[in-house]
Amino acid sequence: MVYYDTINIGLKIGPDIKDITGELEAVLSRSGIENGVLHAFVVGSTGSVTTIEYEPGVVEDLKAAVERLAPRGGYYAHEEAWHDGNGHSHVQAALLGPSISIPVRNGRLKLGTWQQVVVINHDNRARERAIEVTITG
Amino acid sequence: MVYYDTINIGLKIGPDIKDITGELEAVLSRSGIENGVLHAFVVGSTGSVTTIEYEPGVVEDLKAAVERLAPRGGYYAHEEAWHDGNGHSHVQAALLGPSISIPVRNGRLKLGTWQQVVVINHDNRARERAIEVTITG
Amino acid sequence: MVYYDTINIGLKIGPDIKDITGELEAVLSRSGIENGVLHAFVVGSTGSVTTIEYEPGVVEDLKAAVERLAPRGGYYAHEEAWHDGNGHSHVQAALLGPSISIPVRNGRLKLGTWQQVVVINHDNRARERAIEVTITG
Repeated sequence: MVYYDTINIGLKIGPDIKDITGELEAVLSRSGIENGVLHAFVVGSTGSVTTIEYEPGVVEDLKAAVERLAPRGGYYAHEEAWHDGNGHSHVQAALLGPSISIPVRNGRLKLGTWQQVVVINHDNRARERAIEVTITG
Repeated sequence: MVYYDTINIGLKIGPDIKDITGELEAVLSRSGIENGVLHAFVVGSTGSVTTIEYEPGVVEDLKAAVERLAPRGGYYAHEEAWHDGNGHSHVQAALLGPSISIPVRNGRLKLGTWQQVVVINHDNRARERAIEVTITG
Repeated sequence: MVYYDTINIGLKIGPDIKDITGELEAVLSRSGIENGVLHAFVVGSTGSVTTIEYEPGVVEDLKAAVERLAPRGGYYAHEEAWHDGNGHSHVQAALLGPSISIPVRNGRLKLGTWQQVVVINHDNRARERAIEVTITG
């Protein structure tokens, strides 16, 4: 069985990080699927998904690490043609990746107690991001 | 339903980056699957997949970032035993990862307008890379 | 068809890297699934999964690269509140990601000859890690 839905989340100027575990659990609950895999995908080339312990310290530390991977204000060839100031956003998002899959067991996401699914906006402006959710089970 | 096929793509000395969105859409079209998930996997330990806006600037910027993660010409323990000059290739590929899943909606990949699926060859020689595609829906 | 199981693996202080390809093949064999996708997910926010050529040199090189991404002994805001010394572990794990999917063909994982699936413990203490395996086919 396959069930799918879209989540829309407003995010601030990147790097901004938001917990979407509750929204994913809500889609899972509507699906009625008990066991399988939930796939979440950020549409767009300046967003990414991963899991973290969602507490303010880790959020800040991950933002700092993402900035080190591709610092704002560095040289980006993307800017030569596009001048939209988000060369770093594209690189950061490509390195982290837009796709994650999470096991589903007994109708719940099988995450650790201190493990949440987060979406990251890397763009240099606030963005409403669409996350496509597909559950197979 | 599960449908699968293999795509073969020639790539130059790494880091080389190629758009495979059209090839994936062709497999999807042959599958007849309307809604679900498409999984793409690069076979081999010196290749990776991700999504980017496929324009020459971002391609160049991502190559530069990948080089920073594990520079060619750095020290690699892999070289001590193997002397094949691709220690950096293995590290780069492991950090980016060989696997991506993309939502399928109405018989199309649900990507952003400026979001393409790319395969990266990190090896220090040209490689024909096999990408295994599996569609579930 | 969906089949699932849990693998438990003991890992040393991070970064520690272990080959789990044999364990995944064993689950696959029990499933009886011939073609599809195997999904592996590390439960917890200080573990990750990827693929490498599992030989001592690459293992050492990947550990060094992971340390560069988020060095032990750097400043981490996570420490201000939690003082558990694993701020770097959280960042490393988030950048690599907890999830991987691998194609299944003719009852085997479709990996390269020198490509193995590995789990990484990033935590600053030895951990038994649970890997949730879900096979769809």
